[in-house]
Amino acid sequence: MRFSLTSQTSTDGVTEQSFTLGEITGVLFTPKGATGPRPLILMGHGGGQHKRAPGVLAGAHRFTAEGGFAVAAIDAPNHGDRPKDEQFIQFAGDMQARMAAGEDPAGLVAAMHDLLSGQAVADWQAVLTAVQELDHVGAGPVGYWGVSMGCGLGVPLLAADSRIRAAVLGLLGVHGLAAPAARVTVPVQFLLQWDDTRVPRDQALALFDALGSTDKTLHANPGDHGGIPAFETDHALRFFSRHLG
Amino acid sequence: MRFSLTSQTSTDGVTEQSFTLGEITGVLFTPKGATGPRPLILMGHGGGQHKRAPGVLAGAHRFTAEGGFAVAAIDAPNHGDRPKDEQFIQFAGDMQARMAAGEDPAGLVAAMHDLLSGQAVADWQAVLTAVQELDHVGAGPVGYWGVSMGCGLGVPLLAADSRIRAAVLGLLGVHGLAAPAARVTVPVQFLLQWDDTRVPRDQALALFDALGSTDKTLHANPGDHGGIPAFETDHALRFFSRHLG
Repeated sequence: MRFSLTSQTSTDGVTEQSFTLGEITGVLFTPKGATGPRPLILMGHGGGQHKRAPGVLAGAHRFTAEGGFAVAAIDAPNHGDRPKDEQFIQFAGDMQARMAAGEDPAGLVAAMHDLLSGQAVADWQAVLTAVQELDHVGAGPVGYWGVSMGCGLGVPLLAADSRIRAAVLGLLGVHGLAAPAARVTVPVQFLLQWDDTRVPRDQALALFDALGSTDKTLHANPGDHGGIPAFETDHALRFFSRHLG
Repeated sequence: MRFSLTSQTSTDGVTEQSFTLGEITGVLFTPKGATGPRPLILMGHGGGQHKRAPGVLAGAHRFTAEGGFAVAAIDAPNHGDRPKDEQFIQFAGDMQARMAAGEDPAGLVAAMHDLLSGQAVADWQAVLTAVQELDHVGAGPVGYWGVSMGCGLGVPLLAADSRIRAAVLGLLGVHGLAAPAARVTVPVQFLLQWDDTRVPRDQALALFDALGSTDKTLHANPGDHGGIPAFETDHALRFFSRHLG
């Protein structure tokens, strides 16, 4: 696969470089004028979102500007600037119909993540290899940040790739993830929204419980699925600095 | 009641002043050479411990040295340098026997806290008033830190005294505390040990749930009752700085 930087802008001390790697569309955030190796954070977005979703952008800018990290965010398969295949379109339509008919969403969400995770893990592994070949990223330590679908695709990635040494995960239940979660052994900070109407509390607690890591922290805050408080970005920055710094 | 400073030492930039207020024995930590008002943190120790228990000392030194706070720690009724009364001695003996006989500890622990909390709340209110009259403490914003019994006595204090504006609590279940917890409305950071052999996980989650605060955060970490990781002191320092700074 060919890695191409396609455009570049800088805002508030952060340079954003759009890239493609084969069919993968992504964006790389680095401190403006950065040279030499630095720790890298991979950021996975939520379901139906894309590489520049507000939650990803906000975190990426702070991790880069305040922590000196490089951050890579990519569109998940069938998301953002990537084409949607027939199987995904059919599956997503079917999923909506079954949710509307009252089927338990946890199983449907898990099936959707399962449909995407093989490709998503391969994408991240290729992107990790490619961006670490850039002079201003280099072969530093690597972390992963992803909640909701970003957690559902991140857990299999962490189970598969030992280059990733710390992760912020959360906003998802254990359904379909018990086995890969048990293979995750790196430090994890896990976010849970106490009043999440999409993810039952006990299922999210069970996913935290299932993680094989001895060093894991659960942060639970009031509010619904999308309401992670801003101070959790401080915590994530400090967590990554502690483990990748 | 008469407030008397009884001794003074300084270590690593922190001045410790032992004091008595009537029958209450306590210690006040301030930055060495401090003058003028500053935020104050009240620190309550665990059951069977005292005002200079390691967890209290470690937190007090960091809050003072790194945050510029004043910290007041006192012996709970019947603890530390304070005399034990007949009722307490009888109650404690009875409690041990009933635990040894297999009775659910949650109810016994709650009954013990209930026995002490009336006096403990009055003690803290008097100490808060007295230390804020000192020039190097003054009438700044006030926080409370206490886990285990420090939480069991802290929840009624927070419910009773609106001068306290933020609290770190935890390591305790909801038994006997649902009503005062619902009256707590200040920001709370709540610590839970995931493998606590003394406090059932669901009871601790239920106490977090019962807190009336809209701004509350649960931090859960692996390990038993006494195993709060050191980085939670960083989180507590930042929490108090955010809410009292």
